[in-house]
Amino acid sequence: MSKTITAFDYKVADLTLAEAGRHQIRLAENEMPGLMALRAEFSAAQPLKGARITGSLHMTVQTAILIETLVALGAQVRWASCNIFSTQDEAAAAVVVGPNGTVDNPSGTPVFAWKGETLEEYWWCTDRIFDWSSEAAAAGEDFTGPNMILDDGGDATLLVHKGREFEIAGSVPATGADDSEEYSVILELLRASLKNDPTRFTRIAGEIKGVTEETTTGVHRLYEFHKRGELLFPAINVNDSVTKSKFDNKYGIRHSLPDGLNRATDTLIGGKTCFVAGYGDVGKGSADALRGQGARVIVSEIDPICALQAVMDGYQVATLESVIETVDIFVTATGNTAIIKPEHLLQMKHQAIIANVGHFDDEVDMAGINRIQGIEKIEIKPQVHEWRLPNGRSVLILSEGRLMNLGNATGHPSFVMSTSFANQVLAQIELFTKPDEYELGVHILPKTLDEKVARLHLSALGVELTQLTNDQARYIGVPVQGPYKVDHYRY
Amino acid sequence: MSKTITAFDYKVADLTLAEAGRHQIRLAENEMPGLMALRAEFSAAQPLKGARITGSLHMTVQTAILIETLVALGAQVRWASCNIFSTQDEAAAAVVVGPNGTVDNPSGTPVFAWKGETLEEYWWCTDRIFDWSSEAAAAGEDFTGPNMILDDGGDATLLVHKGREFEIAGSVPATGADDSEEYSVILELLRASLKNDPTRFTRIAGEIKGVTEETTTGVHRLYEFHKRGELLFPAINVNDSVTKSKFDNKYGIRHSLPDGLNRATDTLIGGKTCFVAGYGDVGKGSADALRGQGARVIVSEIDPICALQAVMDGYQVATLESVIETVDIFVTATGNTAIIKPEHLLQMKHQAIIANVGHFDDEVDMAGINRIQGIEKIEIKPQVHEWRLPNGRSVLILSEGRLMNLGNATGHPSFVMSTSFANQVLAQIELFTKPDEYELGVHILPKTLDEKVARLHLSALGVELTQLTNDQARYIGVPVQGPYKVDHYRY
Amino acid sequence: MSKTITAFDYKVADLTLAEAGRHQIRLAENEMPGLMALRAEFSAAQPLKGARITGSLHMTVQTAILIETLVALGAQVRWASCNIFSTQDEAAAAVVVGPNGTVDNPSGTPVFAWKGETLEEYWWCTDRIFDWSSEAAAAGEDFTGPNMILDDGGDATLLVHKGREFEIAGSVPATGADDSEEYSVILELLRASLKNDPTRFTRIAGEIKGVTEETTTGVHRLYEFHKRGELLFPAINVNDSVTKSKFDNKYGIRHSLPDGLNRATDTLIGGKTCFVAGYGDVGKGSADALRGQGARVIVSEIDPICALQAVMDGYQVATLESVIETVDIFVTATGNTAIIKPEHLLQMKHQAIIANVGHFDDEVDMAGINRIQGIEKIEIKPQVHEWRLPNGRSVLILSEGRLMNLGNATGHPSFVMSTSFANQVLAQIELFTKPDEYELGVHILPKTLDEKVARLHLSALGVELTQLTNDQARYIGVPVQGPYKVDHYRY
Amino acid sequence: MSKTITAFDYKVADLTLAEAGRHQIRLAENEMPGLMALRAEFSAAQPLKGARITGSLHMTVQTAILIETLVALGAQVRWASCNIFSTQDEAAAAVVVGPNGTVDNPSGTPVFAWKGETLEEYWWCTDRIFDWSSEAAAAGEDFTGPNMILDDGGDATLLVHKGREFEIAGSVPATGADDSEEYSVILELLRASLKNDPTRFTRIAGEIKGVTEETTTGVHRLYEFHKRGELLFPAINVNDSVTKSKFDNKYGIRHSLPDGLNRATDTLIGGKTCFVAGYGDVGKGSADALRGQGARVIVSEIDPICALQAVMDGYQVATLESVIETVDIFVTATGNTAIIKPEHLLQMKHQAIIANVGHFDDEVDMAGINRIQGIEKIEIKPQVHEWRLPNGRSVLILSEGRLMNLGNATGHPSFVMSTSFANQVLAQIELFTKPDEYELGVHILPKTLDEKVARLHLSALGVELTQLTNDQARYIGVPVQGPYKVDHYRY
Repeated sequence: MSKTITAFDYKVADLTLAEAGRHQIRLAENEMPGLMALRAEFSAAQPLKGARITGSLHMTVQTAILIETLVALGAQVRWASCNIFSTQDEAAAAVVVGPNGTVDNPSGTPVFAWKGETLEEYWWCTDRIFDWSSEAAAAGEDFTGPNMILDDGGDATLLVHKGREFEIAGSVPATGADDSEEYSVILELLRASLKNDPTRFTRIAGEIKGVTEETTTGVHRLYEFHKRGELLFPAINVNDSVTKSKFDNKYGIRHSLPDGLNRATDTLIGGKTCFVAGYGDVGKGSADALRGQGARVIVSEIDPICALQAVMDGYQVATLESVIETVDIFVTATGNTAIIKPEHLLQMKHQAIIANVGHFDDEVDMAGINRIQGIEKIEIKPQVHEWRLPNGRSVLILSEGRLMNLGNATGHPSFVMSTSFANQVLAQIELFTKPDEYELGVHILPKTLDEKVARLHLSALGVELTQLTNDQARYIGVPVQGPYKVDHYRY
Repeated sequence: MSKTITAFDYKVADLTLAEAGRHQIRLAENEMPGLMALRAEFSAAQPLKGARITGSLHMTVQTAILIETLVALGAQVRWASCNIFSTQDEAAAAVVVGPNGTVDNPSGTPVFAWKGETLEEYWWCTDRIFDWSSEAAAAGEDFTGPNMILDDGGDATLLVHKGREFEIAGSVPATGADDSEEYSVILELLRASLKNDPTRFTRIAGEIKGVTEETTTGVHRLYEFHKRGELLFPAINVNDSVTKSKFDNKYGIRHSLPDGLNRATDTLIGGKTCFVAGYGDVGKGSADALRGQGARVIVSEIDPICALQAVMDGYQVATLESVIETVDIFVTATGNTAIIKPEHLLQMKHQAIIANVGHFDDEVDMAGINRIQGIEKIEIKPQVHEWRLPNGRSVLILSEGRLMNLGNATGHPSFVMSTSFANQVLAQIELFTKPDEYELGVHILPKTLDEKVARLHLSALGVELTQLTNDQARYIGVPVQGPYKVDHYRY
Repeated sequence: MSKTITAFDYKVADLTLAEAGRHQIRLAENEMPGLMALRAEFSAAQPLKGARITGSLHMTVQTAILIETLVALGAQVRWASCNIFSTQDEAAAAVVVGPNGTVDNPSGTPVFAWKGETLEEYWWCTDRIFDWSSEAAAAGEDFTGPNMILDDGGDATLLVHKGREFEIAGSVPATGADDSEEYSVILELLRASLKNDPTRFTRIAGEIKGVTEETTTGVHRLYEFHKRGELLFPAINVNDSVTKSKFDNKYGIRHSLPDGLNRATDTLIGGKTCFVAGYGDVGKGSADALRGQGARVIVSEIDPICALQAVMDGYQVATLESVIETVDIFVTATGNTAIIKPEHLLQMKHQAIIANVGHFDDEVDMAGINRIQGIEKIEIKPQVHEWRLPNGRSVLILSEGRLMNLGNATGHPSFVMSTSFANQVLAQIELFTKPDEYELGVHILPKTLDEKVARLHLSALGVELTQLTNDQARYIGVPVQGPYKVDHYRY
Repeated sequence: MSKTITAFDYKVADLTLAEAGRHQIRLAENEMPGLMALRAEFSAAQPLKGARITGSLHMTVQTAILIETLVALGAQVRWASCNIFSTQDEAAAAVVVGPNGTVDNPSGTPVFAWKGETLEEYWWCTDRIFDWSSEAAAAGEDFTGPNMILDDGGDATLLVHKGREFEIAGSVPATGADDSEEYSVILELLRASLKNDPTRFTRIAGEIKGVTEETTTGVHRLYEFHKRGELLFPAINVNDSVTKSKFDNKYGIRHSLPDGLNRATDTLIGGKTCFVAGYGDVGKGSADALRGQGARVIVSEIDPICALQAVMDGYQVATLESVIETVDIFVTATGNTAIIKPEHLLQMKHQAIIANVGHFDDEVDMAGINRIQGIEKIEIKPQVHEWRLPNGRSVLILSEGRLMNLGNATGHPSFVMSTSFANQVLAQIELFTKPDEYELGVHILPKTLDEKVARLHLSALGVELTQLTNDQARYIGVPVQGPYKVDHYRY
């Protein structure tokens, strides 16, 4: 894996890159009022002193500010990206060098991430963020790994759980014929780990106080772990804070979907027929963005409630099959699998665009598409490929079917990440400082903290908040300072 | 109260009115696919056979179809409106006469409601729907009142609770100086009831299996009753079904707010500056409707999360005080009290319009406004009043500060009421047929029923629902037929 | 025609009606800042002193304010409506009684219009407004008719042209088998006129200085007259002032289309599939309004430029035939003929709604529909008819296929009519006071007047206009005070 | 100027660059159905055979397809960009190499343009496209320059007019103290030309049959030339084709404004307060795009008609001064000068963004900003500069105040450029093949050609056009095949 290390070292050595990243961080800090407010509120008290946080989340400029906020609150941090394409190298470099460091004397945080990792490299990076031996040595303490995880999609959490499971079993199972390429890479990594240190992940799991998880997909995995009785430590579901799911998922994608389409293809969205699979928060933001650009949007849904919302919002709701031949741009936003299948490609218009914003790359069945007889893949530019089909037409697939808003653009913008990451910081503080209040299970942040996150973002947008009078608070039976809604309120 | 009875009798006697109502019912049935589907599904099984339902809900054409659906499923029903202005007299007449009745031989359901009741008349009507003596006599049974309540705003439920409370106390408290006019009417009624039959409401309360409540306000009252340990029977919170709160509240008001403004004032909404107090579901629908007509919308909020939603949706968020002098149309949608106060009126533009869609008439402080020195009230037409202010300007207040979408228009349209009322019917069936599954408390309908309501409304809107494959259902860990979401999902 | 006169006399006698109209006029004056500003600017100078204006335009509250503005500027006026359904009786009554008159001693302006005229009554009214004998007698002068026409749709202008044509020919042609019912009524009227006074319309035509025409349809007729060399006096095309066509046509219909749909049917627009035939200004406003209510809108067009605009604005563009079975609400906005034909009705969904906003009633082929074998027409309420089709389904046709925004609602709101009518007033002043500047032909108002009309409406909407600096004016080569655009600028 | 030539030569030598450009051209051809349809229709007839076209227009991928379309129709072409930042180098390289050429044996069209020219380089390039000596030599003919100009902004036209003017005067005037830097560069160039060949531009002017001009600004210059009697050859105003001004200006900017903002700053647009100066077509598209992303938009206008449109479209209309302190993003779209002045910067929020989409760089007064005492300019990345102000705040100015949709993004997308460029091609054919029909002056394309351009773009967007029947055509008095509207129709 020497190539990888070299690539990373090279980046660290590149002060120009780090400087460019530092400029971007400085500008983005103005767009992340939530994180900056938390620094102002908590940096004296150092609530995360003693926290060793292993973070697996897209290594962007915004994440750089999250990392530096965690550090400002007292934490030690090691970081990897949670997606092979999403790293902004200048942000990674800037975090490693640190605000006051130099190439020769970096003073920042270890980051293991670069744009365009292979799967092997990706899992090597994920493995690295669990290796806290140098920190243990420096501290003269006896720990193996982190005591906190900050996760996005659950890969870091998965690695600990699987690692411990196989250590207890005493062996890693053989790779099966149906296993995905990625799972075979994980198994290989864990085989090496088991051989090298047969109790490593068991020790690591024992040290961890909890995980805070960013996304729907990762949260879903956590609920599954817990349902099966396999969850090893408490989790906070950051995704379902209102100020996360209803902001990052909806307003973030509203921004980054058209941004990614534009950077990838420069195709006019206006006047086009766009198909959005899924009308959850991500689908809602997608449809809104496309309509805002003058597209005609058709939505598909499996949930009758969301389908009814879509039609009441003015969208045609149809199955993919019934409209496929009229669609110019396909957007998958379901979090499910096999939404766009190989046979679909053959029915599409020439140069139809396929864009996945729904987390994993099996939403568009890339494996199946690769197996189409006679298909040819041409790189137009990085993350933009033309797939020539045997029928003489071609389609454009963005970011190899992975998250195109990260691969073709720069992900959610700073402001929405500030709402999302302020939740992460508060969740880390909760789990780390009040372990007794969070028993084994998957928790949602208290509504007061959710409202606090919102409050931290208002003045930057010029919002004047109305104050409840005592009479009014009494009339609706809530405290003057909130929380203002019942827990099941849907916003 | 002879005047009242006469008025009502006169209406019943008016076959022309009933015929007009019957026409409207027939047309509206096509717009209420949920209720009609429930009739088709359940009329053979008669799940509500034996149910005696006391209903207090705006007596509109849509409610007529709800009532006749309940009857089609086996129930006996007595009905009043829950608002003094909201009754459509032709709908009331048609329900009384019944689909196959005549004026001389009515075969319908007893209704106690007409447009423009006084407060005394209103509570007399509410009292009437608890008097099931004629039904008891006809059945040769020994009951006093209903065994089910279907409520909107909680007035029927309140009457039983207060009635029983005072019966147990042995006396009705004296009317206090601070008591509202309405509360003094209630106390007066209960004094008469106590005198006439000192255990009447105690017996009624004991017969009731449960209540299904329609609105935020009524649900809030129920939670308060339950918190104080005073709730007398289980309740289903219909308001918080997704297919109710996210449809009726949002899409209903989107329709009926501009409709009411137009019918009341014929004022161009486009180009105007509109102020919407509150950005809950009703406020969201209001803002959307006004923007859809080309207005500039300013929103006020006390909840930082909703405030952040408003600004992310592109609205200016400000306090009433800071923008009051620039606003043409004021809409209150908070469910709170004293949003628009007398002193505000004096700062408003000439002929500014005040429209309350937030449930009670204290959202606009009508009592206070009436007390402004030198104010003059001129009726432009029914439910539209010009209030001439001492400063020489005037403002228009719609529906006397009560729900203008009901008072100045015809309320939510049939289609959204179909989603809301299908929840009511299913909730009535649940509480009546499965009493053991609903302990004392406030319950939300199971998500499967919520999804069922949505499903019943799709084909009428031309929606093609996508079917999950088995693989996909397994992938996201849900049954192929749903429910598709975790309970805390916010839609 | 005694019935007619009686009906009208009754209305005039009804002071309650006139008082109600006066209230509405007073409120609407606040919404017509353009007309009120013209009164303030010109009432001292009396530029229309000596003008005898025959007006044919929907007799609404807004028109009442137009009439009273013309009078305030010195004119004498006689008025009829230009549509059999569009009169608001209270407005007509108020104009007749006048601001300071009484029933016994009316001091207003003669109006010949009421809601729900027959075709015979309609043309009788139109004939009346050309009879200025009482005014001539009162003035001791020798004129037959008006010296100015203010027209909407061109019926008044048509009557003069046809009347004179037949007088010159010496006879009125026999009614042909293909002549419409309406044309046969006109011929009948002119036969009577010719018999009674064989040079009446020839004398009237000779007295007229010019006509100002309100609508696309009427303007089209004028251009046709002029192209054939038949135009008898100069015309100002008010319709094509930007502040008319781009405001009244677009923003007026955005208001009054959903208003009419709501008042007629109370049907939820949200979630429905709506078809808008024609994407001119009226179609653009219609589509915008329907989308603003959450409908899915499909547009049809014959002009490729307008079709391209529609698709770029995000609408599906399709032929009626290809989508007819999926549509809930049909809106015709073409100004053309036979858009919806009898055979179309048989393909429509049950209770589909048909709404014409495109001027004449042949846009929906009512004559053809009446001839469908076995069709049955049921009046749901005035101007709302259910047509039961032989296939068992029914459709709802609003306002008998005539302008439903006038027939089912109250037409364009005051504010947009203020822009439109301010153009009318300025056009009347131009033609009456500067006859030498307007040779025989069809003219558009100078851009300075168009901009003046806009300027008169800004402060009421809180607009702050930016002032050009001298440098900036020089830079773009326009006067600091305007006009700011080249004549062919499209806005 | 050897550096320039070298830079260009280098690019030509770079086959990788040309290949990348060729890929993009191939993909973009699918998005330019108008140009491809014109190739299909006219390539056999070769209507531009003999045309020598000097083109000055942003050298993008879309322009490459325009150039190759002109060549396909028989023309010879020389090309420069009309903006120092707007060239896409790979597109330039691909055009030079040609579809079938190689680096060693290029077979394309001479292009003089690269991204990031100095002013000297820019005007050197513009001079080069008038030097047709090698073509004359190759043809054995005796001409000096082009016989057609295709212009954008009028720089090529200006050079010929000024060159001839000074040749007739016999000298180039001295550079004045108030002359802009750019004008001094032009004067310098013309001094050298005059010295070298004192009749060069006079001969060139004599050979030119006409110019077709792309933009508002260039058209304005042409009308000014013509008004002063200085115009040297007929011009077609392509900008004012409906399918140009109402598409490129409006829908193009709707796409490229947010695209440029995103690429430049990655700042969330949603929730922000955006100020759009000017509500012409570009301003309308800008406001629409920003609202579509969830921004609150405030518009400024000097024209009362456009101001009234803005407020009727739901935007606050205010002066810059009254809202400057609340604005996050400033967009100038006026085509005028000195909209944002140095003193304004000092009132802006920290990190406010300034984006000009209004043609010239004096819309934001860059010269004045450069002179602010103590201001500091930091390059964040190419075309994105932070200007640190003496008050401790900073602002971001995009593309040095020039067109940011070109400098920070890739300009209008292919599809809208296809409508615009199809007009250019038809205009070139008109002027070149029918010189007798276009006398000296500024002409607009016949409406039939405008409609033709629209028609060529419909099927790509799935539009079904409705066909007029003969009866309908007769009814509205137009030919079945169009044109469908009067000339003054505004769309």
